Amino acid sequence: MTEVSIEVVKKFFIDLQDRIVGTIEELDGGGKFLKESFDSPNGGVAQPRVLTNGDLFEKAAVQFSYSVGDRLPSAATERYPNLANCPFRATAISVIVHPRNPNVPTTHLNLRMFLVEAQELVWFFGGGFDLTPYILFEEDISFWHEQARAACGSDARYVELKENCDQYFYLPHRDETRGVGGIFFDDFNTNGFDDCFKFVKIVGETFLHAYTTIVHRRAHLSWTSEEEEWMLMRRGRYAEFNLAIDRGTKYGMQSGRRIESVLASLPPRVLWPYQHDLLVSAKFANLTSKLQRGIDWLGIVDNSVDKS
Amino acid sequence: MTEVSIEVVKKFFIDLQDRIVGTIEELDGGGKFLKESFDSPNGGVAQPRVLTNGDLFEKAAVQFSYSVGDRLPSAATERYPNLANCPFRATAISVIVHPRNPNVPTTHLNLRMFLVEAQELVWFFGGGFDLTPYILFEEDISFWHEQARAACGSDARYVELKENCDQYFYLPHRDETRGVGGIFFDDFNTNGFDDCFKFVKIVGETFLHAYTTIVHRRAHLSWTSEEEEWMLMRRGRYAEFNLAIDRGTKYGMQSGRRIESVLASLPPRVLWPYQHDLLVSAKFANLTSKLQRGIDWLGIVDNSVDKS
Repeated sequence: MTEVSIEVVKKFFIDLQDRIVGTIEELDGGGKFLKESFDSPNGGVAQPRVLTNGDLFEKAAVQFSYSVGDRLPSAATERYPNLANCPFRATAISVIVHPRNPNVPTTHLNLRMFLVEAQELVWFFGGGFDLTPYILFEEDISFWHEQARAACGSDARYVELKENCDQYFYLPHRDETRGVGGIFFDDFNTNGFDDCFKFVKIVGETFLHAYTTIVHRRAHLSWTSEEEEWMLMRRGRYAEFNLAIDRGTKYGMQSGRRIESVLASLPPRVLWPYQHDLLVSAKFANLTSKLQRGIDWLGIVDNSVDKS
Repeated sequence: MTEVSIEVVKKFFIDLQDRIVGTIEELDGGGKFLKESFDSPNGGVAQPRVLTNGDLFEKAAVQFSYSVGDRLPSAATERYPNLANCPFRATAISVIVHPRNPNVPTTHLNLRMFLVEAQELVWFFGGGFDLTPYILFEEDISFWHEQARAACGSDARYVELKENCDQYFYLPHRDETRGVGGIFFDDFNTNGFDDCFKFVKIVGETFLHAYTTIVHRRAHLSWTSEEEEWMLMRRGRYAEFNLAIDRGTKYGMQSGRRIESVLASLPPRVLWPYQHDLLVSAKFANLTSKLQRGIDWLGIVDNSVDKS
């Protein structure tokens, strides 16, 4: 067992950021990321990488951050409220990709580690990935969840983290999930640092492989203006979630962090037509019927306990 | 002094809705409002009127509602927290107009009355109007505030309600106001029902006159694609306010009310480019420099106490 180290996690996140940026540029074929770096006086650093108006991707934000703080924000942990206000270090990578082609889904990855200097050193990881398609390809969603299950290493863990994801990425005012889910975990530190970090690495690698595979499958497909409009309307739901519901965005907006970084996740173009649902949703009902919690994409929920 | 009556207020709001709808259709020249009506079993009624894809207005929502409830939501009043959960009746009109032409400002009106059956009957009004321009015409803003002052009947009241408006329509994460303000009041019941209702009527009439005047001044102007893009980006700020900050929208989203009505205020098309500020804000700096609290459009703040 190695020592708990935020440095090795930081290094992995920076390297993963580089590879995700490289992969997206390669998939895009034309667009390039704007590469910025912002240092804090206390040793923190933020490295946003944002691509806009690519050939395949209309907007993609791949952001790394390392921060050093005097007082852990209470939003950082649910399980350890007593750690709020302790000195901490944190590192995170977040990815949001908004494709131009409605056949290619939007996706999101977040991985983060907190190290808190309380009476003893406390650390935990959080993160996950999820997928938001506009046009339904069931085999892509099954593949996405199959990859998530493989990353989890056991059906029991997959079922738990998939359920977390369904719970979190949900718009109560629409009674629908943001997309078709994936996995989501928080305050994660079971079985020691090595095991947890290994899992976080696998989640990052799996995300990159799974999303790239789906993009390769769909990027060559053409689309209609009706499908594009549908995507732009669905992106409105994405913005509703990020602005009105997402804890991370809320915290970022209140924390005084650089607002262009916090809101880089917002879709580049959005439509909010009145009663769009009545007008075209019926044509996309095969997708919307899947925007619900608790869909068992892999047919394993019933026997997950036995298999774990 | 007449009796306190929500019925006369309701009647005025319905009539005002009709006239606003008629005026906007006339100004537009082409677009027509969709006229819907939804009854509640308990006697409530909602009448959304939404125009989409007009010639001059891209989206306009003029909504009337009358509701009867067992428990007053705590969001309804700040001054009377002890009234929360009492039986109540409420009526409201709300207006949001999103023009297609960036020379014409977006505007918003809200007027509402609550009648609460506590140990004694308690009533109060709330509401106001505000303006969100995309291209600066200082004389329009001065005119808007001059009209607001006239509606208030005294400089003291105008200064107070204008300050309320600056405070409320503010995006802390952007450190800017939503627009150039107007007036805003809440929990309003000083000097008896007659006086308050008279003020509310004047506010409604003033709004209609002031906005119509500004539209007549600007609707014939042409615009560039750069100005249109700027408007679509500024509309993103509008959506940020409505989704992340506005108490009314938040309450509507949590209350289970018909979501298409609650979110009819959202702009029809929005852009969230990365670092748009860096790219074009400089060209519109004469406007953005006015998106701050405390701008004294009428040059009266210093001597408002004497004049009141």
